[in-house]
Amino acid sequence: MYKGHDPKKQTICETGSEIMSLYGGVEGGGTHSIALIVADDGKRLAKTDGPSTNHWLVGVDKSIETINDMIQRAKGAAGLDPDTPLQALGMSLSGGEQKDAIQKLIDEMYRRFPKLSKSYYITTDAIGAIATASDRGGVVVISGTGSNCKLVNPDGSEVGCGGWGHLMGDEGSAFWISHMAVKTVFDAKDNLVSPPHDVAYVKKAMEEYFQVSDLMGMLPHLYRNFQKSHFAGFCKKVAEGANAGDALCQHIFTQAGRVLAQHIVAVLPQAQEALFSGELGLPILCEGAVWASWELLRAGFTEVLAQAKGCGGGHFRGYSLMTLQQSSALGGAKLGAQNIGATLPLDYAANVNVFYKHSFTEESLQESVQLLTLKQ
Amino acid sequence: MYKGHDPKKQTICETGSEIMSLYGGVEGGGTHSIALIVADDGKRLAKTDGPSTNHWLVGVDKSIETINDMIQRAKGAAGLDPDTPLQALGMSLSGGEQKDAIQKLIDEMYRRFPKLSKSYYITTDAIGAIATASDRGGVVVISGTGSNCKLVNPDGSEVGCGGWGHLMGDEGSAFWISHMAVKTVFDAKDNLVSPPHDVAYVKKAMEEYFQVSDLMGMLPHLYRNFQKSHFAGFCKKVAEGANAGDALCQHIFTQAGRVLAQHIVAVLPQAQEALFSGELGLPILCEGAVWASWELLRAGFTEVLAQAKGCGGGHFRGYSLMTLQQSSALGGAKLGAQNIGATLPLDYAANVNVFYKHSFTEESLQESVQLLTLKQ
Repeated sequence: MYKGHDPKKQTICETGSEIMSLYGGVEGGGTHSIALIVADDGKRLAKTDGPSTNHWLVGVDKSIETINDMIQRAKGAAGLDPDTPLQALGMSLSGGEQKDAIQKLIDEMYRRFPKLSKSYYITTDAIGAIATASDRGGVVVISGTGSNCKLVNPDGSEVGCGGWGHLMGDEGSAFWISHMAVKTVFDAKDNLVSPPHDVAYVKKAMEEYFQVSDLMGMLPHLYRNFQKSHFAGFCKKVAEGANAGDALCQHIFTQAGRVLAQHIVAVLPQAQEALFSGELGLPILCEGAVWASWELLRAGFTEVLAQAKGCGGGHFRGYSLMTLQQSSALGGAKLGAQNIGATLPLDYAANVNVFYKHSFTEESLQESVQLLTLKQ
Repeated sequence: MYKGHDPKKQTICETGSEIMSLYGGVEGGGTHSIALIVADDGKRLAKTDGPSTNHWLVGVDKSIETINDMIQRAKGAAGLDPDTPLQALGMSLSGGEQKDAIQKLIDEMYRRFPKLSKSYYITTDAIGAIATASDRGGVVVISGTGSNCKLVNPDGSEVGCGGWGHLMGDEGSAFWISHMAVKTVFDAKDNLVSPPHDVAYVKKAMEEYFQVSDLMGMLPHLYRNFQKSHFAGFCKKVAEGANAGDALCQHIFTQAGRVLAQHIVAVLPQAQEALFSGELGLPILCEGAVWASWELLRAGFTEVLAQAKGCGGGHFRGYSLMTLQQSSALGGAKLGAQNIGATLPLDYAANVNVFYKHSFTEESLQESVQLLTLKQ
């Protein structure tokens, strides 16, 4: 299937009596990216991955070259002719907010890669994630290299909080956690701020991870040779410390949980009533690698959401946290198809996994906690 | 004097019966730099200026090329042969902390500019400033583009706080003030943090200064086209707002005053008793353009230092704030000369201006305030 080099057969493949169009989707993160080829019945035909495609971090050229490379490899993996364009390519990109910048990316893709796709559509990583999970909206909180929060209402209206990058936001992200850990060591050394707990573990882990022997050695990592994804990678060491019982690491993750929840509280006033009325309460999609440390985030996160009980016009009575079981490249592909008037049918229930559920309406506010396995 | 092109006359100039050697000094900031040529009697022969020489910001090549250009122009201004090296060039550089990096700068200067100077010496902007003000130590708090604090004891021992650049410090600097102003606008827009005061003035000033129409427009200023000195330049608009009565701008400057004072409190425990015993109390040298807004910093600054009364083993009973009346390039030149065993006599009393004096020992802790003109 999907093999051969007859142009007709490559873009419009016959499966039995049906004629099938092919769509592409991209999930573009600050550290790594995923590309999919999807048939018009929603079936995934190929998947490839690559490095960061956040154009704010790697530049326009590198971003679109990586996207082209991933999709062309995916065409190859699906047995398609690389010279035959897809019907549409929908991209869910971290850094995909600004209209002018997005248009520039799209114009460059048309110009440089005429055989990649017939049409292009770019949205943010947040919108792509929600499109993968639901066609009725929800809240997504991304905490990967950077962070971002977006609420999409059932009527499609959107409101966001964060997503401004490490110099103006990214609170609760891997970068932010790494930064807070390192900054605590600097401030303790300077006697500028007393650390809330002993910095010994974080200091040693920092010296090992960044291969430095003193604080001065950190300066190239922060400036001349700064790479956001590498700096953010130190978050893993902080998580390891927290899991091993280090109080400072645990404190930092609690703070991260707190500030991630504050992003949700920030968008709640704009939520339409229907978003709260499902049996899951407010559906909150948790995207990004930091959520793998949910147990470390939990104390701070649940504390802040508990304080927001009754927000959203009194309708905020509970919430469910879920992860995607599929790459948000799938939602990207759906939106790219939708943009040219096509519909990709997705099995939303199969695309998510609920890992935590909380209801404020239970007696004495006892948590009705279902801690399910965090599969991702 | 110092004219003509006979090499002997140019490096060793006869003035009456004395033979004079020539020294150079550089004050290198994050935004602009100053160079001096000084005779061995301490007399200034020429002064030039140039852009940033912070090698963390502009790179090694640009930094040393700017230094070479400034000194060569200064030689010209003093009527000296540009091909005849100075005896020593002492540089007081923002970003001049790390030994390895400094050695690299010096090695490159020897290699690329053999006619610039016979020897090179690099220290930090903080140490250069104190060397200009005194030969008995003191505290310097720099708040220019970035910030830094250093205490030098009468015996020459040093302790520092800050100076780690905008990703790991710079609290109370022009960058930090600009950042806090912009961040307050972002957080208010996102509903993430309620602003302490109306953001209308700061938002409008931000849109005008950065020539943007919305928050998205700020992203290139923060990332792709980020220039620290330009971003920090927005501080002037915040100061203008504060002076015109805007409550948010005033609040931000109060916070800046607070955190600058915290840098001093951080180094106080390492101060030797003799530093407190002069009639000025602890001498605090205030360097950098932000101090021109002392009246805006004052409330937060004095509040934090009042809380530190009695620190330093009970010896912290008062303090004086002073500004340099000469470029710290002069202290740089002195240290460069000292490094080759020579002594540049400086008139320290003439080099400083005390603009604020406070004693905790007055009855009922009333301020014994002498608010003198801030000449700088």
